[in-house]
Amino acid sequence: MTYCVGLRLNRGLVFMSDTRTNAGIDNVSTFRKMFTYEKPGERSLVMLTAGNLATTQSVISLIEERTKVPEERSPSILEAPTMFQVARIVGQILRDAIKQHSGEGETADTPFSSTMILGGQIAGSPPRLFLIYPEGNFIEAGDETPFFQIGETKYGKPILVRAYDPNMSFEDAIKLLMVSFDSTIKANLSVGLPLDIQTYETDACSLGRHVRIEADNEYYKSVSDGWGAALQNALTNLPDFSFD
Amino acid sequence: MTYCVGLRLNRGLVFMSDTRTNAGIDNVSTFRKMFTYEKPGERSLVMLTAGNLATTQSVISLIEERTKVPEERSPSILEAPTMFQVARIVGQILRDAIKQHSGEGETADTPFSSTMILGGQIAGSPPRLFLIYPEGNFIEAGDETPFFQIGETKYGKPILVRAYDPNMSFEDAIKLLMVSFDSTIKANLSVGLPLDIQTYETDACSLGRHVRIEADNEYYKSVSDGWGAALQNALTNLPDFSFD
Repeated sequence: MTYCVGLRLNRGLVFMSDTRTNAGIDNVSTFRKMFTYEKPGERSLVMLTAGNLATTQSVISLIEERTKVPEERSPSILEAPTMFQVARIVGQILRDAIKQHSGEGETADTPFSSTMILGGQIAGSPPRLFLIYPEGNFIEAGDETPFFQIGETKYGKPILVRAYDPNMSFEDAIKLLMVSFDSTIKANLSVGLPLDIQTYETDACSLGRHVRIEADNEYYKSVSDGWGAALQNALTNLPDFSFD
Repeated sequence: MTYCVGLRLNRGLVFMSDTRTNAGIDNVSTFRKMFTYEKPGERSLVMLTAGNLATTQSVISLIEERTKVPEERSPSILEAPTMFQVARIVGQILRDAIKQHSGEGETADTPFSSTMILGGQIAGSPPRLFLIYPEGNFIEAGDETPFFQIGETKYGKPILVRAYDPNMSFEDAIKLLMVSFDSTIKANLSVGLPLDIQTYETDACSLGRHVRIEADNEYYKSVSDGWGAALQNALTNLPDFSFD
């Protein structure tokens, strides 16, 4: 399993992903699920992946081959003129990668499916955030739905729904995401540290800060430990129930 | 879908269930999912059901037929000498009900499966709380796992894990459960009000208070409205993230 979130703020985009992959509970590994591409000053792109690891690695490899051989005929995400075109390219590569392994040869217990979050900006247009489905089509975040989650989305959703604010600072957004990830990690063994964080500031057109939160990170521990007490306190301050 | 919780406290048991059932999103109804049985002073039993409505209604009807015809050969949950035997009877009826409709005749898109929570006490033994699987077997709550959830369990779990305390009063437990239900109801359209609440006080051997929370309940609204602000406040009070 996996947990990744892409968040649209007024000041830019924030991305966070875990790194745990597993093929059965006795076959657990750490793999990066966050990938960044940029032409500094012209475009910055961030991708988060969930699903079959062979599929997502194949997609990332195909994307990277195309960006490194720009004279190749296939369109590259570093050349496409708009974020919409970038999303179409990624969607097409994803669909082809899944199709290639489905329906012939060995079959697997788990499907070859994969879902991706793509966000970023190309100079001259606003930043955009997409959720790309295994079928290759995609939806875009807007004011009503300002964030996307992929993977194990349920445990960490209530806090995002309640505490998200488009005017948040990057620091506050990261604090919120840490709580959302901590709730998920506490509930699902297949989501785990380290976590990758990437920010993107609107109109910078080059990537913002990248932070990796390791398992012994003091700040993460203080959020994780403090949140239990904070929740109990919040509950205490709600009006009391009475049978009468 | 459904959301039901059975909670074991030092002072007794608390049960809560929603009432929404749906066969497709355009076929939504309200059905009780909480059923109580008692011989006041001798035993009190509470059952919560999740899964296929035809299956759970069939199980409840069979259980009730047996309790009303005590001279019948089949064992009744009002006659069984221990809670363990009661759980075995319910598990057996559940398994038979599922088996009867599976594997022959019309098949359905959704399985005939169902899961149940059973709690209560028979005079002379302590109160016990069970989770009964569609296969008819079951597990019992203990100090390490003091509550069971069935149905849409993920959204409402983090707050239960963080704020449960075995020394809670019934009133505080109900407040906690209301927050857990509100998080679930906000996230999943197939879980909805009214809610049923039932308490059972250890060694009373007769049922405690039953409350139905209707959609216009003022207390539920105050919890639902207050929780968003309480969470934001809790988040604010956590240590701030810094990139440095």
